[in-house]
Amino acid sequence: MQTNASVEAKIEALIKQLTLEEKVKMIHASSSFTTGGVPRLGIPEMVTSDGPHGVRPEHGRDWNLDQNVYDSGTYLPVGVCLAATWNPKLGYSFGSVLGSEANFRGKDVILGPGINIIRSPLNGRNFEYQSEDPYLVSKMVVGYIKGVQDQGISACVKHYAANNQETRRFWVNVNMSERALREIYLPGFKAAVQEGDVNTLMGSYNKFRGQWATHNAYLMNQILKTEWGFKGLVMSDWNAVHNTMEAIWNGTDLEMGTDLGMLPNPNYGKFFLGDTVVTMVKAGQVPEYVIDEKVRRILRVMFKTNMIDGKRKKGEYNVKTHQQTAAQVAEEGIVLLKNENNILPFNKSKLKSIAVIGVNATRPQSMGGGSSQVKAFYEVTPLQGIQKLVGSGVNITYAPGYTITRGGTADQLSINKAAEAAKNADVAIVVGGWTHGYNYSVWSDNAYDAEDTDKPDMQMPFGQDELIKAVLAANSNTVVVLMGGGPIDMTQWVDQTKGILQAWYPGMEGGNALAKILFGQVNPSGKLPMTFPKKLEDAPAHKLGQYPGDSVNVYYYDDIYVGYRYYDTYKVDPQFAFGHGLSYTQFEYSNLKVQGTGKNVTVSFTIKNTGKLAGSEVAQVYVHQQKSLLPRPEKELKAFDKVMLQPGQQKTVTLTLKEDAFQYYNDMQHKWVLEPGTFDILVGGSSKELKLNGKVTL
Amino acid sequence: MQTNASVEAKIEALIKQLTLEEKVKMIHASSSFTTGGVPRLGIPEMVTSDGPHGVRPEHGRDWNLDQNVYDSGTYLPVGVCLAATWNPKLGYSFGSVLGSEANFRGKDVILGPGINIIRSPLNGRNFEYQSEDPYLVSKMVVGYIKGVQDQGISACVKHYAANNQETRRFWVNVNMSERALREIYLPGFKAAVQEGDVNTLMGSYNKFRGQWATHNAYLMNQILKTEWGFKGLVMSDWNAVHNTMEAIWNGTDLEMGTDLGMLPNPNYGKFFLGDTVVTMVKAGQVPEYVIDEKVRRILRVMFKTNMIDGKRKKGEYNVKTHQQTAAQVAEEGIVLLKNENNILPFNKSKLKSIAVIGVNATRPQSMGGGSSQVKAFYEVTPLQGIQKLVGSGVNITYAPGYTITRGGTADQLSINKAAEAAKNADVAIVVGGWTHGYNYSVWSDNAYDAEDTDKPDMQMPFGQDELIKAVLAANSNTVVVLMGGGPIDMTQWVDQTKGILQAWYPGMEGGNALAKILFGQVNPSGKLPMTFPKKLEDAPAHKLGQYPGDSVNVYYYDDIYVGYRYYDTYKVDPQFAFGHGLSYTQFEYSNLKVQGTGKNVTVSFTIKNTGKLAGSEVAQVYVHQQKSLLPRPEKELKAFDKVMLQPGQQKTVTLTLKEDAFQYYNDMQHKWVLEPGTFDILVGGSSKELKLNGKVTL
Repeated sequence: MQTNASVEAKIEALIKQLTLEEKVKMIHASSSFTTGGVPRLGIPEMVTSDGPHGVRPEHGRDWNLDQNVYDSGTYLPVGVCLAATWNPKLGYSFGSVLGSEANFRGKDVILGPGINIIRSPLNGRNFEYQSEDPYLVSKMVVGYIKGVQDQGISACVKHYAANNQETRRFWVNVNMSERALREIYLPGFKAAVQEGDVNTLMGSYNKFRGQWATHNAYLMNQILKTEWGFKGLVMSDWNAVHNTMEAIWNGTDLEMGTDLGMLPNPNYGKFFLGDTVVTMVKAGQVPEYVIDEKVRRILRVMFKTNMIDGKRKKGEYNVKTHQQTAAQVAEEGIVLLKNENNILPFNKSKLKSIAVIGVNATRPQSMGGGSSQVKAFYEVTPLQGIQKLVGSGVNITYAPGYTITRGGTADQLSINKAAEAAKNADVAIVVGGWTHGYNYSVWSDNAYDAEDTDKPDMQMPFGQDELIKAVLAANSNTVVVLMGGGPIDMTQWVDQTKGILQAWYPGMEGGNALAKILFGQVNPSGKLPMTFPKKLEDAPAHKLGQYPGDSVNVYYYDDIYVGYRYYDTYKVDPQFAFGHGLSYTQFEYSNLKVQGTGKNVTVSFTIKNTGKLAGSEVAQVYVHQQKSLLPRPEKELKAFDKVMLQPGQQKTVTLTLKEDAFQYYNDMQHKWVLEPGTFDILVGGSSKELKLNGKVTL
Repeated sequence: MQTNASVEAKIEALIKQLTLEEKVKMIHASSSFTTGGVPRLGIPEMVTSDGPHGVRPEHGRDWNLDQNVYDSGTYLPVGVCLAATWNPKLGYSFGSVLGSEANFRGKDVILGPGINIIRSPLNGRNFEYQSEDPYLVSKMVVGYIKGVQDQGISACVKHYAANNQETRRFWVNVNMSERALREIYLPGFKAAVQEGDVNTLMGSYNKFRGQWATHNAYLMNQILKTEWGFKGLVMSDWNAVHNTMEAIWNGTDLEMGTDLGMLPNPNYGKFFLGDTVVTMVKAGQVPEYVIDEKVRRILRVMFKTNMIDGKRKKGEYNVKTHQQTAAQVAEEGIVLLKNENNILPFNKSKLKSIAVIGVNATRPQSMGGGSSQVKAFYEVTPLQGIQKLVGSGVNITYAPGYTITRGGTADQLSINKAAEAAKNADVAIVVGGWTHGYNYSVWSDNAYDAEDTDKPDMQMPFGQDELIKAVLAANSNTVVVLMGGGPIDMTQWVDQTKGILQAWYPGMEGGNALAKILFGQVNPSGKLPMTFPKKLEDAPAHKLGQYPGDSVNVYYYDDIYVGYRYYDTYKVDPQFAFGHGLSYTQFEYSNLKVQGTGKNVTVSFTIKNTGKLAGSEVAQVYVHQQKSLLPRPEKELKAFDKVMLQPGQQKTVTLTLKEDAFQYYNDMQHKWVLEPGTFDILVGGSSKELKLNGKVTL
């Protein structure tokens, strides 16, 4: 966050006028989602709002949802779907929608993006995050933040740091090597600060190396504020502050949501950064300048977002352009995992009947998952999308096939009905996978992708394995569409299934986007932002590491071997590899040139669309150091580009690898090092399908 | 610690030959004081030994003291006495004695110096440390370390960090601001590493900001190894390791003394850095290179001290030169606190009788205090020193005056006898103050300056107040000599007493040194390295801060206001100020010149000995910034020089203040800053008697 001399002078003038009591009011909440303001000096309350893929339903000052207010807004696809587009420009559009709607609704801060690394398939909140790969996260997060902030609204990157599980999230003490921290878990946050110029950052609930992350001297003071030079505001997650002195000294600027056991009307003065601070400063136990610094950071954000001086944008709400962004993210984010014998796209003119099977085909997802809930202005379900696209000329039969009950097993009657429907149709489309909650008040009930809870395993819930096998037996022209924040165990039916799509939770336009892909109106271009292992036990957090740890600690023994860094290095075959995603057309890679011997290496290559449809390809560049002092992963993503090509068209892609593309964090020397040597430059359409292979010696 | 390419190559070659099991043996103890060696490759055990003011009595491989071995060595004055000399060259001599005797006794590492900041008068281990002032510590520690290490022995600076109390030292969680850490508690360690080039460093028992100091990622990895570039070896204090993973990752290179509840013959493989590490590395949970780095640091120290290649010095033991160093440190370290009407020095030719009173006049102190115990080759007590000096021509009567019993009160019969002796003598000398333990096996029994225990208060124990008042009433020509690691409450008798000396625990030659000062054969030149407050409640740790905290935490609310930084800024009159110390002659300061406008400021002034005796003066230069963004202490010591002057002689002292003399740690910006402005340059013989006053604008 840049500073500006005239603004800084205004801030200092205000600080001089503020009484100690007023300053302290500013550094903690004044209601469920607002900070304390000082009307006397024209300092407003700062209004925060979840969440990362839509502006949350309206709260009153207490914790109850307001009824009868205009808060049904644009519901964008979830974070992993955005990441699956591999399109940073879409990140910007996505953020712009949030910023615009936040403006319209009088919010000052959007509590997103969430960018914690996807370490285990089980994390209930993976759907809100982005990727297992720090480079992909870094590229996507910057666009998102700039999109929000160019609307004059603050983004709030979260949850800093090492919050990679919901199990015991309120107290688990996360331990990992410095190298894992620097190479895997922090780069996204660093990019948010240094490239995204993010205004605010939220601390996480967990402990990190023994100290609460939200007031962790190392994370906040040393790394964030000193090393990265963050000038914005650190806020706590709701109820993440535990200690006045640590919060004062270790970088927490704003305390939100502390649970004093007296909701819905807490005495906000009792917050850790409340009246106690006034008492301590007056007793000389805390220098006032430390409080001034928190106020300074809050005011800096307020000035930057025109909350004090200047004019706010009005914003827009539920406009067509926002819905188009939601549609585009879904269209580019849904991933075609498998397409044997080109079962897809379906040709609607040749189909007379379709069986649509599975509860997720009809289930609204917008209110699911916890704080990221959105009251959608509308939500097109898969069934609605398919119906609309195929029109009345095709007969659609719907069968739920299973019932959503936590721990529920196969319901043979439902399965029989679904199989019957499939048998009688030309093709069957099963829309299943994980569930996402439905009703705010029971968000964890029956929900697998949800805040505050992790998945118990990676098995398909509710007897869906049996369902899919029965449908496949009834009709081999079956396509499976999976929803969810991440992988599911497909081993019982994957080999027999010709077509599989990963649809995540694709937002308000998700049903339309899915239908367009199924019927070829959109050529899929999404790529997996995480590895899909065959089995949970293949996942490195579970194989090498601890997950979720014991009642006190979790140790990330898996270290830097997160995601494909593990599968590649340890030679474990995944179900679907990181970066994987098919198209209805084909791309040919050729003519790799790797130039440069300094720290600026230029990689260029040609991609040609050799098929019959226009389509986009995400060309991925991985780097592998042939020999290094400390072991390194088999390869690491260091550049990518999404290229749209007409049939027969070819383009030359040129990407630049800077020094950081070749460095690793040497935790013996405590610094990033570029060890001289030869590096393989691997180029292709997924981490497993590398078509080109070059070298550079540095 | 410098590295050297050819040595590093040898180290790497050894690491390649070592098996994992051998490496792990090297990173934990193999007996009470040795590390594991690898005879197959010529890697010896590393033999460590307490302590900071003499080589400790000999242990066997178990915890029992060896009997019947030649281990009665040179017993130097304790750390505070060395600091009170304000003579860094003596620090070097002091270290040389330790290094030489360690060599003679086959030790590789001396577990000293101890340099924790003296925060409260109550800390039982203050006697081993140096000062309340980080600058004085930084200057003294470097000489000490170089003295030890020039003998080819490793010093071990300790206890890193924030170990400023013995109460709950094994688990207290110390919390302080980053500014206090950087300005007060760390500079001595930084100087030890960067200027002293110390080979080894010992972690402390306490927690720091929630994490055990010994495996504290921030202290060890970030600050010590990354910021300061420490290349040597971090060892745990004995039983300070608590967790394998933290020790592996957070910078502990060597685990010593873990209490497995099976002393005296523990299974050393069960140490946290023992067999478990082998298992974890083999399971892929820890990369072997992390273990290699610990081995590398151990080997680096071994090569530097010729343990593997090269020839060790033979060392000397109980030689005259060592005893002379002990004498000189005592002579320069004993402080003349008060000398009304020039009661001192006594003129032995005019005295016919002396009453020597007080247990400390006859009590050997060498075995006191815990791990710093020394079997003294001899120890001259004050009574012996006085007897030797005055010879048979003066009649000396001795009366103990009190009995050493913890919590013991005045013993009227003893007091009466002492008063009677005083009444019948020309002068009385009371040698009292704190006690220091006596017998190793009951080191904390009746001892106030001792490891593992703090003083309960600052009151004179054993009824000494009553004793001194009775002696004063009997004979006004009474001089009080105080022993101890720090201040004692003198308010009941200080105003009535003409002469007071602070003798600390002055080592094997202490009795001689004290006698020479009492009788004018040595002109005292010691200066207090810590403030002596009037009352405990005046001390900032007790007034502003917490001491000793609650059962879990201690918060240093006193922040940077430690010692005179507090008394000066908060206008609290001490009993005796930091830097205070009288001479039998007088010094005149004049002709202050402050030159330089850049970051090199030259301060020069003239000191003249205007009295009739030769003597040394410690000229002190304090800096005060007139106006700063964050509050700063009233003044801070930034230079000093000890000058020897014959009667009538004068010298010009020239000292250079570099940038760091004007900086402070801005914990809002997380860095040292030099804020432009005007700085007062204050020069004088104590922090309270500033004779010259200049200015410089930077």
